[in-house]
Amino acid sequence: MTDHHTLPFGVFSQTPDGERRVGVRVDDTVLDVSRLDLPHAADFASSSLNAFLARGRAHWDDVRARLQALLAAGTEHLLPAQGLTLHLPIEVADYVDFYSSRHHAENIGRMFRPDSPPLTPNWTHLPIGYHGRSGTVAVSGTPVVRPSGQRKAPTDDVPTFGPSRRLDIEAEVGFVVGTPSDLGTPVPIGDFAEHVFGVCLVNDWSSRDLQAWEYVPLGPFLGKSFLTSVSPWVVPLAALEAARVPAPPRDTPLLPYLDDAEHPWGLDLELTVSLNGEVVSSPPFGSMYWTAAQQLAHLTVNGASLRTGDLLASGTVSGPQRDQRGSFIELGWGGAEVLTLADGSTRSFLEDGDVVSISATAPGPGGTRISFGEVTGEVLPAR
Amino acid sequence: MTDHHTLPFGVFSQTPDGERRVGVRVDDTVLDVSRLDLPHAADFASSSLNAFLARGRAHWDDVRARLQALLAAGTEHLLPAQGLTLHLPIEVADYVDFYSSRHHAENIGRMFRPDSPPLTPNWTHLPIGYHGRSGTVAVSGTPVVRPSGQRKAPTDDVPTFGPSRRLDIEAEVGFVVGTPSDLGTPVPIGDFAEHVFGVCLVNDWSSRDLQAWEYVPLGPFLGKSFLTSVSPWVVPLAALEAARVPAPPRDTPLLPYLDDAEHPWGLDLELTVSLNGEVVSSPPFGSMYWTAAQQLAHLTVNGASLRTGDLLASGTVSGPQRDQRGSFIELGWGGAEVLTLADGSTRSFLEDGDVVSISATAPGPGGTRISFGEVTGEVLPAR
Repeated sequence: MTDHHTLPFGVFSQTPDGERRVGVRVDDTVLDVSRLDLPHAADFASSSLNAFLARGRAHWDDVRARLQALLAAGTEHLLPAQGLTLHLPIEVADYVDFYSSRHHAENIGRMFRPDSPPLTPNWTHLPIGYHGRSGTVAVSGTPVVRPSGQRKAPTDDVPTFGPSRRLDIEAEVGFVVGTPSDLGTPVPIGDFAEHVFGVCLVNDWSSRDLQAWEYVPLGPFLGKSFLTSVSPWVVPLAALEAARVPAPPRDTPLLPYLDDAEHPWGLDLELTVSLNGEVVSSPPFGSMYWTAAQQLAHLTVNGASLRTGDLLASGTVSGPQRDQRGSFIELGWGGAEVLTLADGSTRSFLEDGDVVSISATAPGPGGTRISFGEVTGEVLPAR
Repeated sequence: MTDHHTLPFGVFSQTPDGERRVGVRVDDTVLDVSRLDLPHAADFASSSLNAFLARGRAHWDDVRARLQALLAAGTEHLLPAQGLTLHLPIEVADYVDFYSSRHHAENIGRMFRPDSPPLTPNWTHLPIGYHGRSGTVAVSGTPVVRPSGQRKAPTDDVPTFGPSRRLDIEAEVGFVVGTPSDLGTPVPIGDFAEHVFGVCLVNDWSSRDLQAWEYVPLGPFLGKSFLTSVSPWVVPLAALEAARVPAPPRDTPLLPYLDDAEHPWGLDLELTVSLNGEVVSSPPFGSMYWTAAQQLAHLTVNGASLRTGDLLASGTVSGPQRDQRGSFIELGWGGAEVLTLADGSTRSFLEDGDVVSISATAPGPGGTRISFGEVTGEVLPAR
């Protein structure tokens, strides 16, 4: 069946170094949007989606309707997807990584702070987040060079320097901001879809040994900043109406600015994590405690402004079951358990040459499934 | 005396909404660099320094020498500084805030974690840092709207929402990256001056009540992200040779990538913090435990790349004496002490209408003093 519903946006070129322009994926083809007679057509002869994203919801919806009409009528501007080069779809402004899976936060808390309750006291009151490095967000396919840095096991007296021994992934979902907001003015939770254009997949590559030594008291830094990979296609929120679900019940009463009773933005995405082609986990995004609408309201409640290209990532998506955990530190319980692969080999953390891919689908209209494509990367040895 | 040595770079316009271009401050005038016959002159008809900064050290030094020759010969392109509007001098790429004053880290540790040693075990082994929000970095003069958010005193059962009651400053020094670096390739400590163009002043406005409740385990977020102010003038490293000093002795042996014995980048800046025109503190930047060269080497040792416009801030500059502390939480010891002003009024934290200014000077050639100008801002009531 031809998919005229998902219509994810990306940036492509016909040769690796060729001119970049905006495309929309349709089955096994890419619609060259830069060739179409659309309002603000110059936005699409661009190396990023930002100019288009900055125009806001009414324009996004208008373009979507025009594309659907064009596709229904037939167009000659469809290129075979195979052979095209896909690029980072957005110029990332600020990148914020949240921590919104209760299962993940509890698992990590048990491993990193075994003598304390797994959740910190603030966790059920606000969606915890921190800023990541936007300059090292790269498109799917970018290899990850094993990072070096300071590592110190609890039994070591002093840290040593060298390649990370605990290289990991975090399977996440990203939300791309289009419409900016003014400094000093919070964005109410009900305005989420006015500001956020769409959804991509994120692999927040993580070095657990660097992170464990550095992160107290100011949070993760070098343990995360070496690379964050995103999928090349951004699926519009407009395509995800059938995927909306309420978030799980909350234990703690929500402050009014986080109350999402009338703005449910849980999304029933089913993620799949593959290692060297073998599925190792199937994290359910619908299990997330905090939604992206709550994250956006929280991020701006102090008056912080949004820019076009801001990227909000969900934090690792982990479900309650072992085979739903979205990181290897959880799958292998920090080395205490091992993950056994089909060929009998085992993994606690990633080895050089490993290839990790994260994909996702979600309910579409009339029982169909929407595909988010994938975000993938190979581990290269430390330099 | 005419100052042809400092030559700080900024961005100005002749009316508030007028065309922006690059200028260099000379005494009470601004040299309109966009009017000069210089290599890559188009870089200076720009709303930011980034195009100029991206060209690297040899070009910066060449332009500096040409400007000095032009000024010595006399030029008609000097505009009275009074009446010009100054703008954010750089497009900020990634903003990283460090935590490099031992006195500050010990003071904060004693207040935030009274039951633990004041310094975390990693503190003397690496320059702790975290990413801040680059989209809310603004030029001096931008008012700070008192942020609202979740606050919870240790004696409260649950958090409440409302305006911050503990609004504070952090007096810092910022380092502006010009030359980018490649993903996967660390920048050695000796290459600091190849990548960093110059120095500005930073006020990292902080909400201590929002920060205290949110910051465990992933670090500061809304407690910082509402505004970070920078001075309009960026003083080139090339002007600061006479200000270079060795950092204080370190307790802990340094790993080789942080060894700065041959690359001393301590800088003898004397900062001044004023509240409503009254000097309340004089933090000595030469007392910082970690230098910006060490911060840059650390930031990239995991392979993270640099972009033109990256801003590295030092963290609060606090000296060993009470009147050398660079934040009000330290000056008033978290409300346990009070700061008494000349008119007999007292402060623990900032009140609406307060104006805070941070200025600095450093040794210049031949016994002169280099001025960094100031970064200033007024506190506006919560909206």
